[in-house]
Amino acid sequence: MDFNQSEKMQTIIGMMDEFVEKELIPLEPLFLTRPFTELLPVIKEKQKMVRQMELWAPCHPKEYGGMGLSLTEHALVSESLGRSPLGHFTFWAQAPDVGNIEILHMFGTDAQKEKYLHPLVNGDIRSCFSMTEVNLAGSNPVMMDTTAVRDGDDYIINGQKWYTSSADGAKFAIVMAKTDPEADRYRQASMIIVPCDTPGFNLVRNIPVMGHTGDDYFSHAEILYQNCRVPKENLLGPAGGGFAIAQERLGPGRIHHCMRWIGICNRAFDLMCARARDRVISPDGRTLATKQIIQAWIAECAAEIQAARLMVLHAAWRIEQEGAKAARKEISLIKFKVANVMQMVLDCALQVHGGLGMTDDTIIAFFFRHERAARIYDGADEVHKVAVAKQILRGYDGRPVK
Amino acid sequence: MDFNQSEKMQTIIGMMDEFVEKELIPLEPLFLTRPFTELLPVIKEKQKMVRQMELWAPCHPKEYGGMGLSLTEHALVSESLGRSPLGHFTFWAQAPDVGNIEILHMFGTDAQKEKYLHPLVNGDIRSCFSMTEVNLAGSNPVMMDTTAVRDGDDYIINGQKWYTSSADGAKFAIVMAKTDPEADRYRQASMIIVPCDTPGFNLVRNIPVMGHTGDDYFSHAEILYQNCRVPKENLLGPAGGGFAIAQERLGPGRIHHCMRWIGICNRAFDLMCARARDRVISPDGRTLATKQIIQAWIAECAAEIQAARLMVLHAAWRIEQEGAKAARKEISLIKFKVANVMQMVLDCALQVHGGLGMTDDTIIAFFFRHERAARIYDGADEVHKVAVAKQILRGYDGRPVK
Amino acid sequence: MDFNQSEKMQTIIGMMDEFVEKELIPLEPLFLTRPFTELLPVIKEKQKMVRQMELWAPCHPKEYGGMGLSLTEHALVSESLGRSPLGHFTFWAQAPDVGNIEILHMFGTDAQKEKYLHPLVNGDIRSCFSMTEVNLAGSNPVMMDTTAVRDGDDYIINGQKWYTSSADGAKFAIVMAKTDPEADRYRQASMIIVPCDTPGFNLVRNIPVMGHTGDDYFSHAEILYQNCRVPKENLLGPAGGGFAIAQERLGPGRIHHCMRWIGICNRAFDLMCARARDRVISPDGRTLATKQIIQAWIAECAAEIQAARLMVLHAAWRIEQEGAKAARKEISLIKFKVANVMQMVLDCALQVHGGLGMTDDTIIAFFFRHERAARIYDGADEVHKVAVAKQILRGYDGRPVK
Amino acid sequence: MDFNQSEKMQTIIGMMDEFVEKELIPLEPLFLTRPFTELLPVIKEKQKMVRQMELWAPCHPKEYGGMGLSLTEHALVSESLGRSPLGHFTFWAQAPDVGNIEILHMFGTDAQKEKYLHPLVNGDIRSCFSMTEVNLAGSNPVMMDTTAVRDGDDYIINGQKWYTSSADGAKFAIVMAKTDPEADRYRQASMIIVPCDTPGFNLVRNIPVMGHTGDDYFSHAEILYQNCRVPKENLLGPAGGGFAIAQERLGPGRIHHCMRWIGICNRAFDLMCARARDRVISPDGRTLATKQIIQAWIAECAAEIQAARLMVLHAAWRIEQEGAKAARKEISLIKFKVANVMQMVLDCALQVHGGLGMTDDTIIAFFFRHERAARIYDGADEVHKVAVAKQILRGYDGRPVK
Repeated sequence: MDFNQSEKMQTIIGMMDEFVEKELIPLEPLFLTRPFTELLPVIKEKQKMVRQMELWAPCHPKEYGGMGLSLTEHALVSESLGRSPLGHFTFWAQAPDVGNIEILHMFGTDAQKEKYLHPLVNGDIRSCFSMTEVNLAGSNPVMMDTTAVRDGDDYIINGQKWYTSSADGAKFAIVMAKTDPEADRYRQASMIIVPCDTPGFNLVRNIPVMGHTGDDYFSHAEILYQNCRVPKENLLGPAGGGFAIAQERLGPGRIHHCMRWIGICNRAFDLMCARARDRVISPDGRTLATKQIIQAWIAECAAEIQAARLMVLHAAWRIEQEGAKAARKEISLIKFKVANVMQMVLDCALQVHGGLGMTDDTIIAFFFRHERAARIYDGADEVHKVAVAKQILRGYDGRPVK
Repeated sequence: MDFNQSEKMQTIIGMMDEFVEKELIPLEPLFLTRPFTELLPVIKEKQKMVRQMELWAPCHPKEYGGMGLSLTEHALVSESLGRSPLGHFTFWAQAPDVGNIEILHMFGTDAQKEKYLHPLVNGDIRSCFSMTEVNLAGSNPVMMDTTAVRDGDDYIINGQKWYTSSADGAKFAIVMAKTDPEADRYRQASMIIVPCDTPGFNLVRNIPVMGHTGDDYFSHAEILYQNCRVPKENLLGPAGGGFAIAQERLGPGRIHHCMRWIGICNRAFDLMCARARDRVISPDGRTLATKQIIQAWIAECAAEIQAARLMVLHAAWRIEQEGAKAARKEISLIKFKVANVMQMVLDCALQVHGGLGMTDDTIIAFFFRHERAARIYDGADEVHKVAVAKQILRGYDGRPVK
Repeated sequence: MDFNQSEKMQTIIGMMDEFVEKELIPLEPLFLTRPFTELLPVIKEKQKMVRQMELWAPCHPKEYGGMGLSLTEHALVSESLGRSPLGHFTFWAQAPDVGNIEILHMFGTDAQKEKYLHPLVNGDIRSCFSMTEVNLAGSNPVMMDTTAVRDGDDYIINGQKWYTSSADGAKFAIVMAKTDPEADRYRQASMIIVPCDTPGFNLVRNIPVMGHTGDDYFSHAEILYQNCRVPKENLLGPAGGGFAIAQERLGPGRIHHCMRWIGICNRAFDLMCARARDRVISPDGRTLATKQIIQAWIAECAAEIQAARLMVLHAAWRIEQEGAKAARKEISLIKFKVANVMQMVLDCALQVHGGLGMTDDTIIAFFFRHERAARIYDGADEVHKVAVAKQILRGYDGRPVK
Repeated sequence: MDFNQSEKMQTIIGMMDEFVEKELIPLEPLFLTRPFTELLPVIKEKQKMVRQMELWAPCHPKEYGGMGLSLTEHALVSESLGRSPLGHFTFWAQAPDVGNIEILHMFGTDAQKEKYLHPLVNGDIRSCFSMTEVNLAGSNPVMMDTTAVRDGDDYIINGQKWYTSSADGAKFAIVMAKTDPEADRYRQASMIIVPCDTPGFNLVRNIPVMGHTGDDYFSHAEILYQNCRVPKENLLGPAGGGFAIAQERLGPGRIHHCMRWIGICNRAFDLMCARARDRVISPDGRTLATKQIIQAWIAECAAEIQAARLMVLHAAWRIEQEGAKAARKEISLIKFKVANVMQMVLDCALQVHGGLGMTDDTIIAFFFRHERAARIYDGADEVHKVAVAKQILRGYDGRPVK
C-alpha cells in the first residue's frame, strides 16, 4: 500500500496548478459575463502556451500528439484542471471530445482516424456526442427513438436528441441510433459519425440551462435529425455495438469527471477558507473563521473531499489493474458520492460568502448552478445506487435482485 | 385550537390560485428567457385584471387602496402568489415595496405619505431599500460605513450599498445611513428617503446574480452615494431610529417571505409529483412514480412542507396576538427552517426532472438558483440559529450567553 | 385559525407537568437500575395521588372512571406525561392498555366490558396485544401464521407471536389470528380475548431488547399459542374484523405515541440546554452554551420540535373534525417525522452530555436506545413514506401507484 | 500509488476472518445475555488457539511475544477483529491494554517493563487507563483535579476518575495526575503506575452504561483515589510528561479504533444485506432486497464504508511515513468521519432488521447502543472538527484562529 505520486506527476501537476492559477483563473470574470466566443481568441493563446509547455492533450495517445498519461495519472491532471471551468478545455482534456477520442482510437477505422481523430487530438476541430433523448431515460438503452436505417450504402438517421453538449461549433457528432430494433435489447443501437454540416443535421437550439443559453463549447444543443444521410463507412465500431461502446466510454469518463469535481471542491474549499479568514464580522476585527459553525463546515468538507478523492484514485487504480468491468461497483460508488460531496462543498462555500456567493463576482455561483447536473448526467444518483446495491446483494446469494 | 380558515380567505385564495395558474404561469417561459422590461406591458394588463377583481395590494391599508388583510390572512395570500415568481409583483405584494409601504405608513409624515406612500400603494411608482453594504455583515447594525451628515437643512449621504434590489426603475430609495456615529450602537443609523434622480445617487451596475444581471424590478443594484443631498424632511421616522425601524420592517417581512417560500415548495412539489407520474422509465410503461426512492422523497417533502407551513402560520398568529417582539424566537425558527425546506424540495424536484430540471423549460431551475439566497438575506441561517439559541439558553438561567 | 388551548387544559397540563417533575422524575434512577417490580409499590402510591387529583385515566371514558378527554386534549396530556418513562403508566394512559380499552369500548359485548373493560380502566388489571409475528412483516395483514380454528363453541389458537409488550403480568391478551384463511385478504383475521392463564398460552421469554430483558409492564414477550382454547364468546368484534379493528386502534394510537415522543423531545431538549449552561469547558468558566456548534443544535432541535408538535396537534385536530380515515396522510406523516425528530434530539442531547450521556446517570441513554423502536413499530418509516406517497400520487391522476 | 496488500497480510487476515467467523461470532449470544466472567473460561480456550496459530498480540513488539506488525498492517488486523466485540480481546489487541503496552514500551524503565509490560503482553494480567474526570472536559488537559503530590519517595494520589474502562479485574492502572500545577499548562500532569490493590485505590462502581453495568473487561469504572500512595519509581516517563505521552498514545490508538469501527461497519453491512435478501415481505416471496429504499441505503453505506476505510488506511500510512504529528489533520478527520459512518451504518442495519434489530438476537443492537460512544471518547466530534479547521485555516495566513 503506497499513496505516493511519482516525481513526474508531481512536476506536471505543479506546472498545471500554476498555469490554472496564473493564466486561467484571471479569465473567469470575462468567462462569467461574456459569450464564450469572445473569450475564445484569448484561450487559443493560452493553448499555445500549453503546447509549448508540452502539456497538450494529457490523456490522449502520444502517437497522435497527446501526453499519453495513464488513467491514474490523468486523474491527478483532471483534479488540477478542474479548479477552473476553463482548465480542461485549455489543456484539451474536455468532455465530450475526450470520450470521442477514446472510442475513435479504440474502434475507428484507419480512414476515420485520419479524418476525425487526428485533427481532433490536435485541437483543429471539436466534436459532440449525441445520445440522450428528451422523453426517455438516458440510462435505459432500449428506450431510444432515434433510428438509423440502411438505404443502399448509406444510413438515414431520424430522431430528436438533446443535451448534445458542445454541438454548437462542432465539426462532427457521434450519434447513437437504433440500427436493429429487433435485436437483443443491448444490441439494437450503433454509433455513427455524422459531420455537422450534413443536410438533415439540424441544431434546433442551444437549450437554456440554469438561465444560460450558452454558445460554442459551453452549450447544450437540441438536435433534430431529419433524413440525415451518411455513408455506411461512418459506422463507428460494429453494427449493434453502440451500447457496449457507450459503456466503454463511460468508465474512464467517470474518473475524469469525478476528479474534475474534486478539483472544483478544492477550489471552493480554498475560497471558503480564504473568505472565512478575511470576512470581518465584528468591530473588534473578528472574522468568520473564528465561528464554530464555519469551522465545523470546514472540517466536514475537508473530510468529505479527502474521502471522495481517495475513492476516485482507488477506483482509477482498480480500473488500471483489473479493467472497468471489475471496477463497476467502485465506479458507481464514486459517481454518486463525489457528485454529492461537490454539491455540499459548493453549498457551504456559497453560504460562507453570503450575498457575494450569490453573485458572479466569484466562480462559486457558476459551479453551484451548473454542476448540479453532476448528480444527473452519466447516470443519476439513484440509478447508480440501485445498480450498485443489486450487484452487492447478488453477492449474498447469487440470485439477481429484480 | 382551530386550524380552519375563514370563508372569506378561502374565497380570496381560490381566486388567486386560479389567477396564478391561468394568467401568470403561462407567462413564465417568456419571463425565463427575455428581459423583464419586455414582459412588463403584459404584466400591466394582468394588474388591471387584479384591480378589477379587487385583489390589488392585499396587505396594504384599505385607506390607501389596498385590501387591508391581517398578517395571518396575508400569509395565505403570500403562499398562493408564491407559486410563480410573477405572483407577488402582479398583485402588488412584492418586496421591497411591501416593507417600504409598511414603514412609510407607520413612520411617514403626512407629506411623505402624500408624495411616496399614495403612488406606491397605487402601483404608479416603485421603490427600493438600500441597507446592505459589500464588505460588512448585513446582520450587524454597527458595521455600516454609509453616512448621512447634516449640512444646513439637508443631509449629505456618502457610501456604497449593494443588493439594493429593484433599484433599476425605482422612483425612490429608503436609505439606511449613520447619522450619529457617537450614539449607542443601536441608535447610530437613520432611514432617509432619497429620490433616485437625486444627483449623487449613482446606480453603478445591476449585479450579476447566478449568471443573471436582471433588469427593472428583477435586479439587484450596486449604488454609490456621492455627496447625495436630500432635505432633512426626507428623514423617515426619528433620527437614530434606523435600526428599530429596520427590525419593525423585518418581522412581518419574514412571514411574507416564508409563506412565499411555502408557495414555491407547493409549486415544486406539484411539478415533482406530476413528473413522477408522467415520466416513463421502462418499456412496459412503468413511471418514476413507482420507484420507492422517489416515493420516499415525496413523503419527506410532504412532511417538511406541512411542518414548515404550520410553523409559519403559527408564527404569524403569534405576532398578531402578542407582537413581533414576543414572537422573536418563532420568527427566527421559521426563517432558517423554511428556507432549508425550500432548498430540499427544489433539489428533489430538480432531481426528479433529470436533465430537464437543469433547463429553463420548467421554473424549477430558476427557483433552485435564485432562491438559494433565502438562506442568506434577512439574516443568514447561522445568525438566526445563534440568536434563537442564545434566547433559549437565557431562559435556563437568565444570564446572557456571550 | 387559533392556536390557543382551553383554560381547562392549561390547568390539567400544569398539574401533570408538576407531578411528573416532582413525583416521577425522582424515581427514574431507581427505574433505570432495578427491576420494575421493585418500583411497582412506589408507583402504586403515586397512582393513588393521581386518583385523588382526579387525573386518572385521562383518555378513557368517563362512564368507566376516566377523564374522557378528547383526542386533541389527550395529545397535550401525552406530551406532558411523555417527559418521563413513568408518566403514562402512572396516570394510566399507557400502551397497550389504552388501545385495548378503546377497542373493548367500541366493539366489546356487555359481558366483555364487565369482565375486562371495567377492571382495566380502573387499573385493577393489565392487558397485552398480541399481533406481531417473528418472521412476518407486521405491516402486512395477510402475512400471519397464527390461526384460530372453531371447534364446537371454542376457538383453538395456534401460533407464535412476539413483541407482545407487557404480557408479563397481564391478565388477558387480545390476540390477532386468522379465522378465515379463505376470505378476502383484509377479512381473514379476527381479534380474540385470551386470558393469560389459559392453558396453551405460553410466555416463552421476555425478549432481551437493547440489552434489557425487562419485567412486568416494561417487557416484550414471545408467546407460543399451543392449542390454546377459549370460548367463542371471547371473539372481540365481528369475525374477520381483526384488520379493521387494528386500523381503528392505530389512528389515535399514533397521536398518543407521537405526542409522547414530543414529551421526550422536550425533556431531552431541557436536559441538553441545562447541561450546555452548566458544563464548564475552559478554566475561565466558559460553558458549552457559548459554543456555536451547540447553539446550532439547540436552534435546529427547537425548530424540529416545534414543527413536529404542530404537525401532531394538527393531525389530532383533523381526526376529530373528519375522522381517522380522512386524516390518513397526516397520520402517516407524523408517524415518521416525529420519530425521526425524536432520534435527532436525543442524539444531540446525548452528545452534549459527552461521556455522561452514555451512562444511566441521566435518562437520555434510556430514551436513546429504547425509543429507537419508534421508527419501527406501528409501521416502519419506510412503510409510511411509501403509503403516503402513493396516496399523494394518486391525487395527481387517480390511478393507483403500484 | 498502490492499494495492494502484501501476501503476508492477506494470509493473516484470511486466518483471522475465519477465526472470528467460526470461533467468536458463535459466542456472541452468550456474550449478550450473560456476565462476561461466565464467558471468560471459553475465551481463554480460544486464546490458546490464537497462540497456537501464532496470531497472538498482533501489534505488540516481537521481543515481548507479539507479532510486531506495523501500523498499516495492524489497521487491517483491527478491521478483521472488529467484526465481533470479542475479536480484539481474544487476539489480545484490545484497548486500553494496547495503548498501555505502547507507552510502557516507549517510556517504561527496565523494572517497569519487567514487572508490567512482560506479563501484560503475555496476557497474564490486564491493565486500565485512568485519565477522564467526571465534571471536566476530557479534551482539555489543564482541567484536571486529580493530584499526585510527592511525599518522600512516594507519590500520594487523590482524585476522582471515571470511565476507567476495564478497571474491574485489572492488575494495575496508569493514572494521569497533576504533579506540578504551577508548570506550563501542558506540563502539569504526569503518568503514574498504580497497582489496583494499592490502599486508596477504590473502585466505587462500574458505571451503568446504556443500561449495562458490565463486569471484568467489559466495564467502565468510577475510581476514587484517596491518599493512594505509590513509590516514585512508578512514575512512567518524565515528570510533567503526562500530556505528551497521552498524545503519543492517542495517535495510533485512533487508527486501531477507526479500523475496529470499519470492522463493525462491515459486520453490520453484511447482516443488513443478508437480512434484506432473506426477509420476505409479500406473499409472492418478494424480499426487502427488492425495495429501492433499502437498495439506496446499501449503496450509500457501501460508499461511506469505502470512503472511511480508505481514509483510515491513508492516515495510518501517513503516520508511518511522517509521524503522528504530521498526520494530525488526517487523524482528526478519521476520528469523527468514521465514527459517524459507523453510526449511520448501524442505524440502517437496525432499521432493515425491524423489530428484530431492537433485540439482542443479533449483535446490531449492542453495537448501536455501545458504539454511540465513538463520537465522544478520545475527543468528541466537535473537538476534532474545531481542531482540524483551525489547523487548516492557519494554512491560509499563518495566524492562529482563536
